[in-house]
Amino acid sequence: MSVEIITIGDEILIGQIVDTNSQWMAAQLLQIGMRANRISTIKDEQKAIHKTLKRALQESDIVLITGGLGPTNDDLTKNALTSFFNTKLVFNESVFEDVKAVFKRIGVPMPEVNREQAMVPESCIPIKNQIGTAPGMLFHQDGKIVVSMPGVPVEMKDMMKSEVLPFIAQNTKGVKRVEYTVLTRGLGESSLMERIRDWQMMIEMEGAKLAYLPSIGKVRLRIGLEGDDLDAMNQQIEKWTAELHKVIPGMIYGLGDRSLQDIVGEILRQRGKTVATAESCTGGYLSHLITSVPGSSVYFPGGLITYSNQEKIDRLNVQESTIADHGAVSMEVVSEMATNVRLLMNTDYGIAISGIAGPDGGTEEKPVGTVWMAVAGKNGLKARKYNFLKDRTTNIRVSAETALHMLRKELISA
Amino acid sequence: MSVEIITIGDEILIGQIVDTNSQWMAAQLLQIGMRANRISTIKDEQKAIHKTLKRALQESDIVLITGGLGPTNDDLTKNALTSFFNTKLVFNESVFEDVKAVFKRIGVPMPEVNREQAMVPESCIPIKNQIGTAPGMLFHQDGKIVVSMPGVPVEMKDMMKSEVLPFIAQNTKGVKRVEYTVLTRGLGESSLMERIRDWQMMIEMEGAKLAYLPSIGKVRLRIGLEGDDLDAMNQQIEKWTAELHKVIPGMIYGLGDRSLQDIVGEILRQRGKTVATAESCTGGYLSHLITSVPGSSVYFPGGLITYSNQEKIDRLNVQESTIADHGAVSMEVVSEMATNVRLLMNTDYGIAISGIAGPDGGTEEKPVGTVWMAVAGKNGLKARKYNFLKDRTTNIRVSAETALHMLRKELISA
Repeated sequence: MSVEIITIGDEILIGQIVDTNSQWMAAQLLQIGMRANRISTIKDEQKAIHKTLKRALQESDIVLITGGLGPTNDDLTKNALTSFFNTKLVFNESVFEDVKAVFKRIGVPMPEVNREQAMVPESCIPIKNQIGTAPGMLFHQDGKIVVSMPGVPVEMKDMMKSEVLPFIAQNTKGVKRVEYTVLTRGLGESSLMERIRDWQMMIEMEGAKLAYLPSIGKVRLRIGLEGDDLDAMNQQIEKWTAELHKVIPGMIYGLGDRSLQDIVGEILRQRGKTVATAESCTGGYLSHLITSVPGSSVYFPGGLITYSNQEKIDRLNVQESTIADHGAVSMEVVSEMATNVRLLMNTDYGIAISGIAGPDGGTEEKPVGTVWMAVAGKNGLKARKYNFLKDRTTNIRVSAETALHMLRKELISA
Repeated sequence: MSVEIITIGDEILIGQIVDTNSQWMAAQLLQIGMRANRISTIKDEQKAIHKTLKRALQESDIVLITGGLGPTNDDLTKNALTSFFNTKLVFNESVFEDVKAVFKRIGVPMPEVNREQAMVPESCIPIKNQIGTAPGMLFHQDGKIVVSMPGVPVEMKDMMKSEVLPFIAQNTKGVKRVEYTVLTRGLGESSLMERIRDWQMMIEMEGAKLAYLPSIGKVRLRIGLEGDDLDAMNQQIEKWTAELHKVIPGMIYGLGDRSLQDIVGEILRQRGKTVATAESCTGGYLSHLITSVPGSSVYFPGGLITYSNQEKIDRLNVQESTIADHGAVSMEVVSEMATNVRLLMNTDYGIAISGIAGPDGGTEEKPVGTVWMAVAGKNGLKARKYNFLKDRTTNIRVSAETALHMLRKELISA
């Protein structure tokens, strides 16, 4: 069973928005053992829709389309599908009730143009939109499935979960595919490759496919395997992962597609430890990562963003002389920040970050990307300097992640 | 001149990463008057690469490819291009010097496998990689341009800026296209459409194309125009925008593709005002938005993330009785938070947010998505309750944006 994802929308083609729908859909498909073999983003234009859909149906059994279903006149998908499937638009009373219900819920009179939403292609199965006004459409013909959904992420996700994925799972058969990710840290892509060469040859001889996904500070290894028996495949991968642990001891920090904050959060929760943050250059991003995990309030009472020097002094009791003598971006200042935030908030650990995110503020001695961070615990303090030397956004992101890695290391070695 | 963007990578097709490269490339192309007419994501597989490239060259004059150029053996793009262009790989001394320089800079001995990076197709122009080891490749044949770049975003961006975009601008001619965005707030997509119908008809009669891009809490209007004279087109759009201002007074909060934090930051800077934050459910995300703007330290001394009730009391001097009487998610608590953070940090404004982000913590009276926020200034305080009723991530994001809108309103009405 092969799947193609088509996103329709000029706003993607001109770079105004990032297409996050495709990623989410692809990840969901994988969970039911299906893999997208192509993602296409095309214009909101009948000709492009017809041409792409025709090719997609030659290559794939299932085509999932998002975008181009709003009430306004730049959205052409519904008409394009109606003519593609050689059917006609008919008024659907039940869809109209759903549209009216949406306006009733938000307490706004329904603009007349929304009546159009209840006109659906005769040969499709309408998919209920529980959030917005545009219904989805599912065509099931000659063993092929074509689904059209709105581009608004919450609406698409709701339709996928409640109707589309169950329909696909029920109406298709075929080879299953498992993908499993091992998160590594400490070696670059090519060094890691040399180190695990024998292991890789071994698993590839047994039918696996291995991919390297490097990004700043980490390399994710993705093991792919095809077969009929999901349980057996998962066991096989578990065995291989255990062997990989022995090849690169201490370098695997997580398994599966989990975020670092999720991994660190689980360790904190399991060990009943708490953490507080003191951020300068990351400006709240570290705290945001920590609190993006549901239930993080159990181990995170709060954090201080001391962007100015005065705030470092007033809020965190950093000594004025420490800043004067060593500068705000220094081992001494982050050490005081980490130590003091831990004491103030009465937590097991305190993390502090102070650096120069850029684009301005760098000096010859401390260029943009110079970042000091520290983790304080009851057994002492670790502070370290990094030179990320990237752009502002990357420096902020990588600094926060690196601090989480420092905390993780402290936690597992405690 | 038409452009197709092709991203190669299984990690996108299985939903492991979001393809942000395409968006960035499309936005850059637009700045030199070019528009992508298709974005394709395909497998790391010779057959798929050949097939897609062949079709792309039939539809477009320029094809930009990213991904599949690392030193490890899951990357097939270079070989696929070499056979597609019927050429052969040759060792390039200058590329090899660049690769060695990368390892020298990071102070790591070069793994032997990286010698492969210096093998490039004979008929291509190699593009220098100043960050990583894989060179880019530019093929210029029969009036068509095909460029292959690494998938690592910083590497691709550097190549685009330093070599690819200048090459394209120099070697192509054609109709230019302008896209301009107007950011609106206060009306949903269909209501806005009814309100501006006449204006839309007017600009469309003069050759413009209008698109509605709704997302939670805002609708972006995108005006598109084609022609030869960039200056004249920009003036035309400026005139139209001024007229739109009269049709929906007070609802336009920004022009161009700018973020809300950037718009608010500019107002703060222009008026010489400062702001401090006190966050509960947004956990640092509001501060992160504010500090993601370069130079925000001028108007942002810091913020407090008081996730626990105790921290609200200890750090922000919220009265214990206020929390006991009204709950942490209440008008009374956010009012004290906003007022007190402003006084503590000696700023012109204080913003506070307290809510239930979810998935847990909701009650019948205060379901998940209930969020109180307040803005305190020297002229008083405004507090308001919102019911976002979404998932955790969306509640956090929308709460922070809504708070920025509240601040903006205070700033422009002061």
